[in-house]
Amino acid sequence: MLLMLVVLFVLAAAGSKIFTHFGIPGLIGEIIIGVVIANLVIGDWSLLGMLGIDMKSGASQNYDVVTLFAQLGVMFLLFSIGLGTKVKDLLSVGKAAMMVATMGVVVPLIAGLALMMAYNGDIHQALFLGAAMVATSVGITARVIKDMKLIDTKEAKIIIGAAVIDDVEGMVVLAIVIGMTASGGASAYHIISISVEALLFVVLSIAAALWVVPKIHKRIEKRKERILAKNKGSSADVNALIIAIAVCIGFSWFADLIGLAAIIGAFLGGMLLAEFAHEWKLEERFESITTLFISFFFLDVGMQVDLGSLATVSAVALSAVVILVAIATKYFGCSIGAKLGDKSLSKESRNIIGFGMIPRGEVGIIVATIGLSSGQMSSELYGAVIVMAVATTIIAPPLFAWAFSKKYPKHEVA
Amino acid sequence: MLLMLVVLFVLAAAGSKIFTHFGIPGLIGEIIIGVVIANLVIGDWSLLGMLGIDMKSGASQNYDVVTLFAQLGVMFLLFSIGLGTKVKDLLSVGKAAMMVATMGVVVPLIAGLALMMAYNGDIHQALFLGAAMVATSVGITARVIKDMKLIDTKEAKIIIGAAVIDDVEGMVVLAIVIGMTASGGASAYHIISISVEALLFVVLSIAAALWVVPKIHKRIEKRKERILAKNKGSSADVNALIIAIAVCIGFSWFADLIGLAAIIGAFLGGMLLAEFAHEWKLEERFESITTLFISFFFLDVGMQVDLGSLATVSAVALSAVVILVAIATKYFGCSIGAKLGDKSLSKESRNIIGFGMIPRGEVGIIVATIGLSSGQMSSELYGAVIVMAVATTIIAPPLFAWAFSKKYPKHEVA
Repeated sequence: MLLMLVVLFVLAAAGSKIFTHFGIPGLIGEIIIGVVIANLVIGDWSLLGMLGIDMKSGASQNYDVVTLFAQLGVMFLLFSIGLGTKVKDLLSVGKAAMMVATMGVVVPLIAGLALMMAYNGDIHQALFLGAAMVATSVGITARVIKDMKLIDTKEAKIIIGAAVIDDVEGMVVLAIVIGMTASGGASAYHIISISVEALLFVVLSIAAALWVVPKIHKRIEKRKERILAKNKGSSADVNALIIAIAVCIGFSWFADLIGLAAIIGAFLGGMLLAEFAHEWKLEERFESITTLFISFFFLDVGMQVDLGSLATVSAVALSAVVILVAIATKYFGCSIGAKLGDKSLSKESRNIIGFGMIPRGEVGIIVATIGLSSGQMSSELYGAVIVMAVATTIIAPPLFAWAFSKKYPKHEVA
Repeated sequence: MLLMLVVLFVLAAAGSKIFTHFGIPGLIGEIIIGVVIANLVIGDWSLLGMLGIDMKSGASQNYDVVTLFAQLGVMFLLFSIGLGTKVKDLLSVGKAAMMVATMGVVVPLIAGLALMMAYNGDIHQALFLGAAMVATSVGITARVIKDMKLIDTKEAKIIIGAAVIDDVEGMVVLAIVIGMTASGGASAYHIISISVEALLFVVLSIAAALWVVPKIHKRIEKRKERILAKNKGSSADVNALIIAIAVCIGFSWFADLIGLAAIIGAFLGGMLLAEFAHEWKLEERFESITTLFISFFFLDVGMQVDLGSLATVSAVALSAVVILVAIATKYFGCSIGAKLGDKSLSKESRNIIGFGMIPRGEVGIIVATIGLSSGQMSSELYGAVIVMAVATTIIAPPLFAWAFSKKYPKHEVA
């Protein structure tokens, strides 16, 4: 098992490294390594066999460990994204970011739904495709902006704000989709109850982040001062980490208990502690834990892709259509949202915002993975979503950089 | 499963917190929580049942996760201890530390062996008891010295040096014991081959740490400067963490492959990177990972203790004898070692060193856990070793503080 862990870990690191070298997000390299691992069969020999992995469910302890690590990895990743999402910032970025986010969620959601309903009329697949097309990858967008040193521009602030809000909205959509598809029926009562549950959880978490957590924090601070006065302060830092881990796992469990995805709980748990993440060095410290686990998630994502099932004309066509719809709906949805939210934005600015919101990443892939593992998504559609996530991530940065350089010609462009 | 993880994690944190509050190392609180979890049965209800844990091997997925986390935790813990063990310091602390360590290993090892041979004549049990009595807990000793602000005294330096050396020696002893007992026979050929293997691994790792790693490090530094010049340096830090994780798992796997314990590989892997641990912030970053996992190890240690099997007169007597032998042999072994190593040390100094080396911790417990899980140690003897580790850790600090305050009356004593 240790051999398998180290081989997978090193392969993922190598894949990530190679892609990062060419300016493409490392997670794409990890996914592609996963595809290679699962599909590399030479005669009787397969890489999976060599590593002692049998992907049939429950058949191999080694694969159980990979999926456990993958699940924990994505939980800690969403917790980390939550840690970076301060409720106050979220509430203060204002109308423009809100409109960009909402239009950028509604348009792709409806388009995805309509596309799949037209393609084969399967409502469950349609719901999952719609949900998978919703969320912009905060990570990728933020990295491009950071690399271009444009963080202080108005457009960049709107994009980051909108990307965070659409993550939250994406979580709510995911919660609703899971609730609707899990019990099979899509009764109006069920849709309403799961929506209320998800919204209540989000609203209560935001309320807790605003009013309850700061009070607890004050108490801890006072206590810490007393302890520091007694000259025993060294263990206070470790406590913050332990509390954070407990919050992450606890919220994930609670979300799962009330029928939402565990990762939604992890995200809200992170958001709850976002205000103190910097002070407690939580982001730094969770980076180590996330680094250990997250590669296994992206590897596992890739391993689910069955190249055989993608090598048909209909699969290639489906992927192409999904990519085009994903790009077009996000671009137009967000530029229209920007116009509605802030009349003063020029056409160039709306271009920047539209292009900046295109990349889908972790969240879309997570939605697709949940869809596949719950049997609601065909492996053909799953493959198309993964290809879409990869394609939008590769296509968007150059367009984005070009639009930015048109408006801000003096900035050097990476 | 998430519920079980968060409940165990929070209980362990609470146990650790309570004991730390009373100045007793937190790991003892975690072990005791483990004992409570495994032995709390009220009528038909048991805490284990509520958490979905069935400790019979392979019977419950939840327990498989606990043991996986426990194993990874102890691997990362030993890797961290390795990270704190600079080869140069080890080679430079000189004759006194070396003699203290060696006498402090040889005397308890022989006494443990002799005790168990006299008790029931079982050579395997005797070997494991001897090995479990060998290693002083660097962590506990270092913490007491740090709390008393005595790190600059000659005695403290000798103790820390000796504690590190006896960890290495303890690892070699463990490797030999595992090799001798694993295949059943204790042939001279087998003893020699496993000793050579273990020593070769240790010596090669030390050689690599001294001559190979610095060269690789120089190359990486040069490359990093080039990359920094290109203004893309942000990912260099993550790489260090990835390399360290790969080294930790890779060395553990290699040790396992050649028939040594995985943790020995983890320790040597850590030692390999110790010189750069500070610069790469590895200790800080592994602290998060270790914090996540290690509680499960100490919980699992406690969960192996069957209170029923300890509630006999013979078990209580055995524990008492093991504790007395553990304290006496370490104290006398180390004071004699100090006298042999450095003639200038006063009787008071030798007292300090003798008391300072008494606490056994992680390594002794690890040895006992390996003994129990490989079926070489009875649960009665396992219980006695755990009780011994706990008792020496509680008894030593006051004696140590008293001896120190006699020699350095001006220092305030915690």
